[in-house]
Amino acid sequence: MTTVSSLEALIEALRCLPGIGPKSAQRMAYHLMQRDRPGAQNLADALQRALLALRHCQRCNTLTESELCERCASSRRDPSLLCIVETPVDMNMMEQTQAYSGLYYVLMGRVSPLDGVGPRELRLERLLARVCDGIVKEVILATNFTNEGEVTAHYLTEMLKSRAIRVSRIARGVPVGGELEFVDAGTLAQALRERRALSE
Amino acid sequence: MTTVSSLEALIEALRCLPGIGPKSAQRMAYHLMQRDRPGAQNLADALQRALLALRHCQRCNTLTESELCERCASSRRDPSLLCIVETPVDMNMMEQTQAYSGLYYVLMGRVSPLDGVGPRELRLERLLARVCDGIVKEVILATNFTNEGEVTAHYLTEMLKSRAIRVSRIARGVPVGGELEFVDAGTLAQALRERRALSE
Ligand SMILES: [Zn+2]
Ligand SMILES: [Zn+2]
Repeated sequence: MTTVSSLEALIEALRCLPGIGPKSAQRMAYHLMQRDRPGAQNLADALQRALLALRHCQRCNTLTESELCERCASSRRDPSLLCIVETPVDMNMMEQTQAYSGLYYVLMGRVSPLDGVGPRELRLERLLARVCDGIVKEVILATNFTNEGEVTAHYLTEMLKSRAIRVSRIARGVPVGGELEFVDAGTLAQALRERRALSE
Repeated sequence: MTTVSSLEALIEALRCLPGIGPKSAQRMAYHLMQRDRPGAQNLADALQRALLALRHCQRCNTLTESELCERCASSRRDPSLLCIVETPVDMNMMEQTQAYSGLYYVLMGRVSPLDGVGPRELRLERLLARVCDGIVKEVILATNFTNEGEVTAHYLTEMLKSRAIRVSRIARGVPVGGELEFVDAGTLAQALRERRALSE
């Protein structure tokens, strides 16, 4: 009965990884147990440490180990600029352009009615409070140019329209339908420089 | 400095999984930390349990939690038949045919000179000791029909030739170049029934 249970439990547990079906999970489990036990131990430890350490930054909502993330805590960033991205990966992509020195807000998702993700699920009231700190002068929308990213940008534009804040969108140098994560830094830097005003 | 370290450590740790590159590892890490913390905890626990519990069966070499695996410990299997497979996945595939009631030996690999895997690395002397227990009458080679699987079957045939043991190969109902893992149970059952003798 218990002969294979911890192996089967591992195979099942690996399926929580996005894009991993039963066959892949089985291969991964055997690979780890047969050929890479140090890797498996390292992964178990890393998961445990990350689970204990990671929480959301109080200002920008990204994943961090402290109250405020490195960027939000820095005095060398321009606090009048706030760039809104969907994920921490996108924030890293923006940083790699070395063309931006403002702050960020990470949505940790996008407006996606089909998936039941609306303004409430994204907790956009927190973003609104962040934008209205009296210091932010321009919000740069850097959501993806996918359908959901565009819907999110549109929604945020509407939400921020009546506030005395400039709202801009990074230029469509990013291919239509494309995702920031797969664009080279040069293209993204240009898209940032050529951002166009949506409302004043 | 330490702001993202546990996240980066997790991303790096996920790369020990076969077929997972840096982008996939990043997506997996964010997915786990943002959307599926219970899944991440479950995976950490399953890895830890499997690492502590799993070892090799003393008789068939598969991964198990006890001295002997379920099949080797069973009195309902025919101990005169020994089926040799490359991996525990292949053993499960054979079981699913419901056409085999003998025992198994799991190589946990295959002869692959290019990867530096030879008879010594596979510890074939253990297989030889297993085969020569005085009870085994027929060895059924069920390695894959890939180049390496065929080389392995050939090597095993040579190794067992001088012993008073029948050696057979499952029929090439399995497509040439194919792997057992991706064949339906019916085809595999037929390949088993039509096995041909290689030496008497
Ligand atoms: Zn922050
Ligand atoms: Zn066994």
